[in-house]
Amino acid sequence: MQPRQAYEELTRKVKEEAVLASCVEVLGWDEETYIPGAGVAHRAEQQALLAGLLHDRATDPRLGELFAALEGSDLIADPDSAEAVNIRELRRLYDRAVRLPRSLVEELARITSIAQREWVTAYERSDWSYFQPWVEKVLKLKRAEAAALRPDHDLYETMLDEYEPGMTVRQVAALFDALRGELIELTGTIAASPRRANLSILHRSYPLDRQRQFGETAAAAVGFDFRRGRLDTSPHPFFARLGPSDCRITTRFNHHRFGDGLFGILHEVGHALYEQGLDPEAYGLPIGESVSIGVHESQARLWENTVGRSLPFWRHFYPQARALFPDALHDVSLDEFYFAINHVAPSLNRVRADEVTYNLHILIRFEVERALVAGDLDTADVPGAWNELYRRYLGVIPANDAEGCLQDGHWGGGLIGYFPTYTLGNLFAAQLFERASAELRNLDDDFSQGRFDRLLDWLQQRVYRHGQRYPAPRLIEHATGAAPDHHPLLAALRRKYGELYRL
Amino acid sequence: MQPRQAYEELTRKVKEEAVLASCVEVLGWDEETYIPGAGVAHRAEQQALLAGLLHDRATDPRLGELFAALEGSDLIADPDSAEAVNIRELRRLYDRAVRLPRSLVEELARITSIAQREWVTAYERSDWSYFQPWVEKVLKLKRAEAAALRPDHDLYETMLDEYEPGMTVRQVAALFDALRGELIELTGTIAASPRRANLSILHRSYPLDRQRQFGETAAAAVGFDFRRGRLDTSPHPFFARLGPSDCRITTRFNHHRFGDGLFGILHEVGHALYEQGLDPEAYGLPIGESVSIGVHESQARLWENTVGRSLPFWRHFYPQARALFPDALHDVSLDEFYFAINHVAPSLNRVRADEVTYNLHILIRFEVERALVAGDLDTADVPGAWNELYRRYLGVIPANDAEGCLQDGHWGGGLIGYFPTYTLGNLFAAQLFERASAELRNLDDDFSQGRFDRLLDWLQQRVYRHGQRYPAPRLIEHATGAAPDHHPLLAALRRKYGELYRL
Repeated sequence: MQPRQAYEELTRKVKEEAVLASCVEVLGWDEETYIPGAGVAHRAEQQALLAGLLHDRATDPRLGELFAALEGSDLIADPDSAEAVNIRELRRLYDRAVRLPRSLVEELARITSIAQREWVTAYERSDWSYFQPWVEKVLKLKRAEAAALRPDHDLYETMLDEYEPGMTVRQVAALFDALRGELIELTGTIAASPRRANLSILHRSYPLDRQRQFGETAAAAVGFDFRRGRLDTSPHPFFARLGPSDCRITTRFNHHRFGDGLFGILHEVGHALYEQGLDPEAYGLPIGESVSIGVHESQARLWENTVGRSLPFWRHFYPQARALFPDALHDVSLDEFYFAINHVAPSLNRVRADEVTYNLHILIRFEVERALVAGDLDTADVPGAWNELYRRYLGVIPANDAEGCLQDGHWGGGLIGYFPTYTLGNLFAAQLFERASAELRNLDDDFSQGRFDRLLDWLQQRVYRHGQRYPAPRLIEHATGAAPDHHPLLAALRRKYGELYRL
Repeated sequence: MQPRQAYEELTRKVKEEAVLASCVEVLGWDEETYIPGAGVAHRAEQQALLAGLLHDRATDPRLGELFAALEGSDLIADPDSAEAVNIRELRRLYDRAVRLPRSLVEELARITSIAQREWVTAYERSDWSYFQPWVEKVLKLKRAEAAALRPDHDLYETMLDEYEPGMTVRQVAALFDALRGELIELTGTIAASPRRANLSILHRSYPLDRQRQFGETAAAAVGFDFRRGRLDTSPHPFFARLGPSDCRITTRFNHHRFGDGLFGILHEVGHALYEQGLDPEAYGLPIGESVSIGVHESQARLWENTVGRSLPFWRHFYPQARALFPDALHDVSLDEFYFAINHVAPSLNRVRADEVTYNLHILIRFEVERALVAGDLDTADVPGAWNELYRRYLGVIPANDAEGCLQDGHWGGGLIGYFPTYTLGNLFAAQLFERASAELRNLDDDFSQGRFDRLLDWLQQRVYRHGQRYPAPRLIEHATGAAPDHHPLLAALRRKYGELYRL
């Protein structure tokens, strides 16, 4: 078979597989937003059927023949060409799929589905020992999965590689080690400052319909294309790409928590801008798909925090907010408001953590799950290890398991090796923004005028349009001129919070 | 192969096919409700892919082997048993699917998809000659389809059989002939009555959120189960069954047209009560599926008109309506309101027609499309034939094609032989309700007290739970003791409108 012919058959098959996979996205989106209560059982059957069809296609032996025909061909001569990237990444997925025994895949799907439900019960009972056997089962299966994928390789690194291909545990650990002491110190300095934000202003009355209106205005202003997406509400905010021109986001609004709705929107908008910026013509091919969870998260963080919690952003939007919420904000100055939405304090809860302490929550999870996978920590001892790390890093101690090691459901869902991507996202976001600021100059002025197009265009050129052309570390280096680095994040935090807390 | 074994394999395959088909329903529901504008193109790709997968399954030669193994087996000894019904109806679908060349199926899908869009343009331009070549193309393909399905059979009867299996053209024509003169006469008598409803009260201010609240209350009261369904809005009201316990309906609300939202809801609720009343355990099998379009429509008509436009229904609901819409209804008596929602007048428009004249609109379409299929009417002559029939039956003449023969898009979509099912629905509804009233007695009292459970239960027992056990005419006979008949509808209309117009 001619390589060109093989490549065309390959891309045709893969694009069709992507169309089928996008049906799964539609089913999933509906399940999180509008499905009636009794419809869930049948939805699981629909999902299982499509998952089976997708697995058959992903492991189709014909793909192996096509890859063989492409081996050493001219198409992969330039490793950064779209063809070479597609072949490289599709081959990686195919090798992965055929290495996993179907029984293991099905058992993992079954057990993680139950474990996620059991986590909810354990959380409600605040009882780690109830959840522990499920973590044990999931760990065992995830270890088996990692061993099947890369025999004789570090298991945790293989797990990390699922979400952040191209990053080694050594690289991640080095970055995190560099952050640890600095963040603990910065958190302590802030806590010692006499400056205190007035948080109560965020808990005044914010009518839901106006929150939605404000959120839609802000989303559109930063560049979310409502013709190619929409905003709904759901218990857990998320984004989903239902097609090349159909990227949907959700948030949750709370009448007495201004931040939940808006920052939820800006976070998911960040994910969506990445997805809306991918090449629609290459939909379903690696060159048209996002590259890693860390890079994805970086866009959520960049648009939510770096942009959405910046003073210039609010110079533009605060007058609008005040006009929409006169009862809540008539006696609040811009500076007071800006301080309130950037308040820093050590806490027990990751999801609600501020920009400074957030990464310490991640470092704790990274340490705990590495030790679990390595067998250095018994699942029974997680609460103790967890609480001790919270005491050392954040100076707070959970009163119970729900406040502590049961707060996240990731492990029940099989997401082991996933937590680090949150902090990688913060690191990438800071590094990208530092570079964009240096190149574009006066981004603050843009934001103050409600203009975000120059930043969005820069990210589009440097990140979005590349799809999976470069693995994440190379993408960052290509975009910023430097390998992933902890300095930009620390510098940005010190600058912003140094000013806010007058350190 | 043992027949029992063959039957089990058959039902397993068919149930899986139903799960896949239900994914199509999810995609379709989303397309009509929430999809962003730019998402439509990819949705068409998703639909085409799943349609192809479904076609492959529907024509799987293995099904032919299974039917052969079931031929003459004990399982079909009792023709009304679930097994015999499933085998009979699945075999009918299989024979149908394998008789149609794939090229014809694809061409029909392609042409009707374009013709539906072209109809919109033709309607906007009010120009039948623009649409005519597309009707010509669709007709040609539908004729070919009918010829492939039943060689040497009346083509129009084969088309009708797609929607109303078990009814012959002769039966339908006899029923319609019996209605024609009587309905023309009744319409004339009503027009001659000096009594006139005050329609303006329905065009006062009806806030949308309260219309929704009222509609949801009424839907729940008659028995729509919101745990197994939901209500949304869409440009064209519809119902969709996304799973055995997930039946969704839509309506459209208009601030200044009270009836659009509420009666749209009650109509779709009627469809939904039928679907929610099917046996969920038999989902995907004929014994658990609705039997015909006419019977489906009968439930929409029964709950919208027979129940929802009855005086007892409003004895219960009118105080609530008045409390919700005090500005609009404070000076309107129950009798005035009841008269307004039951106003009768000849008109040009089918969708907005009243209960009496509605069927004349259908009779006209039946005559026109029969003549088209038989070749007795040239597509170029449709406007003339249409307008002449409107003049004769309803005494009104369309001023242009948009008001006349372009008002419905059915033919563009390939729905030829479909229109009769609307009037069959009205006939079945009247016949079922007459029987239910006689058996249950005092249904009026039920409605006046907001109770609909005895009627719903009767329909459940007599109609819904049977699925496709009996073809529609036998189902009606089984439920009412008489073959499909025109007397109950005429009697009900004479009684109701005789009182209203004091004839």
